[in-house]
Amino acid sequence: MPITRADFEAIFPQLVQDLTNHCCQYGLPENALVWFRNSLNHNTTGGKYNRGMSVVDSTQILLGRDLTADEYFKAATLGWMIELLQAFFLVSDDIMDSSITRRGSPCWYRMPNVGMIAINDAFMLESAIYILLKKYFRTDPAYVDLIELFHDVTFQTELGQTCDLLTAPEDKVDLDNFSLDKYTFIVIYKTAYYSFYLPVALALYHSGLATPRNLKQAESILIPMGEYFQVQDDYLDNFADPEVLGKIGTDIQDNKCSWLVNQALKLVTPEQRRVLNENYGRKDKASEAKVKALFNELRLKEIYERYEETKVAEIRGLIAAVDESEGLKPAVFELFLGKIYKRSK
Amino acid sequence: MPITRADFEAIFPQLVQDLTNHCCQYGLPENALVWFRNSLNHNTTGGKYNRGMSVVDSTQILLGRDLTADEYFKAATLGWMIELLQAFFLVSDDIMDSSITRRGSPCWYRMPNVGMIAINDAFMLESAIYILLKKYFRTDPAYVDLIELFHDVTFQTELGQTCDLLTAPEDKVDLDNFSLDKYTFIVIYKTAYYSFYLPVALALYHSGLATPRNLKQAESILIPMGEYFQVQDDYLDNFADPEVLGKIGTDIQDNKCSWLVNQALKLVTPEQRRVLNENYGRKDKASEAKVKALFNELRLKEIYERYEETKVAEIRGLIAAVDESEGLKPAVFELFLGKIYKRSK
Repeated sequence: MPITRADFEAIFPQLVQDLTNHCCQYGLPENALVWFRNSLNHNTTGGKYNRGMSVVDSTQILLGRDLTADEYFKAATLGWMIELLQAFFLVSDDIMDSSITRRGSPCWYRMPNVGMIAINDAFMLESAIYILLKKYFRTDPAYVDLIELFHDVTFQTELGQTCDLLTAPEDKVDLDNFSLDKYTFIVIYKTAYYSFYLPVALALYHSGLATPRNLKQAESILIPMGEYFQVQDDYLDNFADPEVLGKIGTDIQDNKCSWLVNQALKLVTPEQRRVLNENYGRKDKASEAKVKALFNELRLKEIYERYEETKVAEIRGLIAAVDESEGLKPAVFELFLGKIYKRSK
Repeated sequence: MPITRADFEAIFPQLVQDLTNHCCQYGLPENALVWFRNSLNHNTTGGKYNRGMSVVDSTQILLGRDLTADEYFKAATLGWMIELLQAFFLVSDDIMDSSITRRGSPCWYRMPNVGMIAINDAFMLESAIYILLKKYFRTDPAYVDLIELFHDVTFQTELGQTCDLLTAPEDKVDLDNFSLDKYTFIVIYKTAYYSFYLPVALALYHSGLATPRNLKQAESILIPMGEYFQVQDDYLDNFADPEVLGKIGTDIQDNKCSWLVNQALKLVTPEQRRVLNENYGRKDKASEAKVKALFNELRLKEIYERYEETKVAEIRGLIAAVDESEGLKPAVFELFLGKIYKRSK
């Protein structure tokens, strides 16, 4: 049985309690303790938990049986560590992007009395990962590997973020900066590693199946899948029904180095390029509408649909070729692909 | 022979090269690589390196002999990791405190085109620690302990920073928030652990002398010493000659929860308390002058001098009582104390 959102969420209070106890040992003054707990709750909960929950589901598939209570709790705890890692990134990304809301609430740095204290709060969300790892996995044979995995994926995500921030500064539009190569780097490092590779890698370690070959195979399938996921995200930002998507896309106005603008740049005539230069990344509806019209003119919807079929066929090929001799199972990847193929939100 | 600043600084280019190579393996685009190198150089170099250099000196004292080239390089590399940790904190502290300059240059976030990208740059400075630890200490028996030590001290510093930010928000003066208990917590966690305990703990691990007893003894001496160091810092901010100190103190105008204001709060009459309430933390010279006059009236200089003698006597007592049976040497602590006792800058 796949884990439910409610079951996953039910684990979190215990982890907040563990982190509270850890702070109490240092004699942290009460107001600072309340602050940390508020930050943990505001920033880590309320999302979809796809990343976190998939650690539990993947572990179940890999072991081919129901988990014991202890295995289940630890798998969910590893999942919550991904959610903490994401919270660390999102709190700081929202400051760097001057975002206004996140998951329907004000961004943390925009909450009363928070402001730039949010930077230190982001650090503490990251630290929470290693406190929990030490508490629950100190004696696990994979302890060092788990720490290094989180370090590696954290740094990879930071590299992706660096490249993203340098390629598409919000205040300086220069489409010459964009390229499909940079786009691919950003997508893989900023999103795919922590969202797709990390959950399965954690499940492999937790199942005792993290052989170098299995990790390599997982990476070689999940990175293209994460790439596909982000291309979809960029496509939906412009082409999805906002009612269904649950938000109104802002990539054009935000000067995002998105898949669509990179495809457009490959196809434009000099005249169309001028339209793009003059209207992309401007904070007004009229400019945005001109870019949207150009995207339609260039038939980017059809180009996306062809991309999707090709990419999914490639990923299915990789899944079909999985070598199961060291215990890896294709169903892990099918579960991920099933959740995202032809999604509309 | 104690390490010289020049010798210590000569190690850093190799570490920048190591970090560069690590990024190249991921195919990081050139502009992002240049950015990271600039951040490393701007933010990690130019300080006094007291923390970093003392890892080398402490290791030499503990081993009681000159280090081999490899031991020396690794001790200095551990020292540079403290400097990286400090860079991570200072880059982000400067944003949180809206600081203008650092070590005579503009703060990183105020450099051209940097701004809030500095937050991600801070993260990468922290990540650099673990990349270097893995490269040079992966096979060291203390590898896990070294990682956990950096995790622990990082979190301790973040706790101190949380308490500091909540106790003395720059924009909201409320002296009721201050207390000597909070002051002591902030000083110990925000400064003493990473500046005093961390260098010696690293040297103990590097010398193979990090028994629980030696670590505990080092902590019990170095934390009070770090406390003394910060009290001194607060004293010098107000009472030192700016010509000698090399900067003009701003603690009063910045609403800092300093040792002096906490001493004053213990001693004031209701009338003096009113003067403090009305003038502390205001951004003007006239208010500052009134607080300074009150500090003189309360004879805080003499109170500090008595504190210094008592505290140093206590620390000397602890050093004299060091149990050397597991290889710990009092000279390690004498070196630290010698550098700070009665310093004027």
